[in-house]
Amino acid sequence: MGDGDSGSFPRTAAVIGLGLIGGSLALRLREVCAHVTGVDLEPAVLDQAKARGAIDSGSTDLGAAGGADVVIVATPLAQVAQTGIAAARRMRSGAVLTDVGSVKAPVVAAIHAGLPAGVRYVGGHPMAGNEKQGIAAADATILDGRPFVLTPTARTDPSAVALLQTMIVRLRMQPVILDPVQHDELVAQASHLPYLVSLALQRAIADDARAIGGPAMAEMTRIAHSPQTMWNEICRANREAILRALVRFEAELASVRRDVEEGAPTR
Amino acid sequence: MGDGDSGSFPRTAAVIGLGLIGGSLALRLREVCAHVTGVDLEPAVLDQAKARGAIDSGSTDLGAAGGADVVIVATPLAQVAQTGIAAARRMRSGAVLTDVGSVKAPVVAAIHAGLPAGVRYVGGHPMAGNEKQGIAAADATILDGRPFVLTPTARTDPSAVALLQTMIVRLRMQPVILDPVQHDELVAQASHLPYLVSLALQRAIADDARAIGGPAMAEMTRIAHSPQTMWNEICRANREAILRALVRFEAELASVRRDVEEGAPTR
Repeated sequence: MGDGDSGSFPRTAAVIGLGLIGGSLALRLREVCAHVTGVDLEPAVLDQAKARGAIDSGSTDLGAAGGADVVIVATPLAQVAQTGIAAARRMRSGAVLTDVGSVKAPVVAAIHAGLPAGVRYVGGHPMAGNEKQGIAAADATILDGRPFVLTPTARTDPSAVALLQTMIVRLRMQPVILDPVQHDELVAQASHLPYLVSLALQRAIADDARAIGGPAMAEMTRIAHSPQTMWNEICRANREAILRALVRFEAELASVRRDVEEGAPTR
Repeated sequence: MGDGDSGSFPRTAAVIGLGLIGGSLALRLREVCAHVTGVDLEPAVLDQAKARGAIDSGSTDLGAAGGADVVIVATPLAQVAQTGIAAARRMRSGAVLTDVGSVKAPVVAAIHAGLPAGVRYVGGHPMAGNEKQGIAAADATILDGRPFVLTPTARTDPSAVALLQTMIVRLRMQPVILDPVQHDELVAQASHLPYLVSLALQRAIADDARAIGGPAMAEMTRIAHSPQTMWNEICRANREAILRALVRFEAELASVRRDVEEGAPTR
């Protein structure tokens, strides 16, 4: 572990919520931090995280995250804001709080509204994952080279953004800065829309057709099988941007249909 | 090479059109047949097929396929029927002709209309492939365990179906028997619809959103990049079934939209 730039790089990190993303981040953080603390409601998850080498120490108590230089909230989306504020109240002055919520504008607004003085918050969203869930599926390689979006606002301390950018590069990911509202519009198209399209396709293919489907069908319907609770939270949190993305898609689908009616769809 | 059942298994095969599917089939046929002949319009393709070990001998002349026990037409869809009839005229009595066209009802009808007496024809469709094309992309492992649909009709000799079923099992694929019209209806849902949905999605995602897209987006838009000429031929040949599949999909998409408007899409 190189500590040459420890002034700007977080030496200690805490991850709250050790699911697929939290667990994967913890695994990678352990390669670059002196100490990684895990917090999870489930003692069995903490045991598994320790056994997998994802954390140095674990606790079901949010207070255990309080001593870290950087605290990452990786709970389900619906709990991110509340958990982030509760964690911030236990964090030391100057520490940095971020999260991995898939929708940013409502989370960032809610956390800023409850943030205690002294704690620096920057919204975050690592663009990684797969259709699995839980610490058992955690895998640091899903992070490799992926964008990690940061969503600072006018209220964000630029030095906290710089510290997280350094951390993200050390995690072997690509830092990307976006406005929270812009982030939500873009992920509605690039992430939430593909899920809903996969879901509709999954429903539209009859069982006897599915039986002879090729690899393309399997891959087009894979994310329809990802955790539904997570997607329901995302759909509720990003409803308006998702509906705008659906309008874009419906227009393109209508255009594809006309192409088929007339004989030749084009890219 | 086990020849214990050579009475029912084709000892020699010819593949006409050495693209991704024809080349992959040839590679696998060489593992189980005494001789594989390749026919292609391009001498350079024949050279590459020989260099890759996909064929024992090659020719630009359709007549070279005439001596084989089984002849497989693997040209682009628009040329399958014409090529199949031309090949059949050069085949010996009792030999079996099949093809790999993605749409079966029009191909099967056209070939039966022009088939010389003595040659036994069964429509075929190996449900394998990827977004690549050409002999360079040929890979026998894309066939592993995949369905290979056969579409006999009332005019088909059952012994030809049995011979092809034996061949398909030896190719390590799964023989599936379907009526040509039923095949076209099912592949419209399981194969052609996923392509058109991928195409519409690819168009609906703006460039700045694409830049932060995750693996799910990449996989949902991958087949949009598969060879467009091939898909245009498929869309023309299977237009009505594809439009019916689009109707099914549009209904499910409208249902997903309503779920989002009301807060919670479900599988």
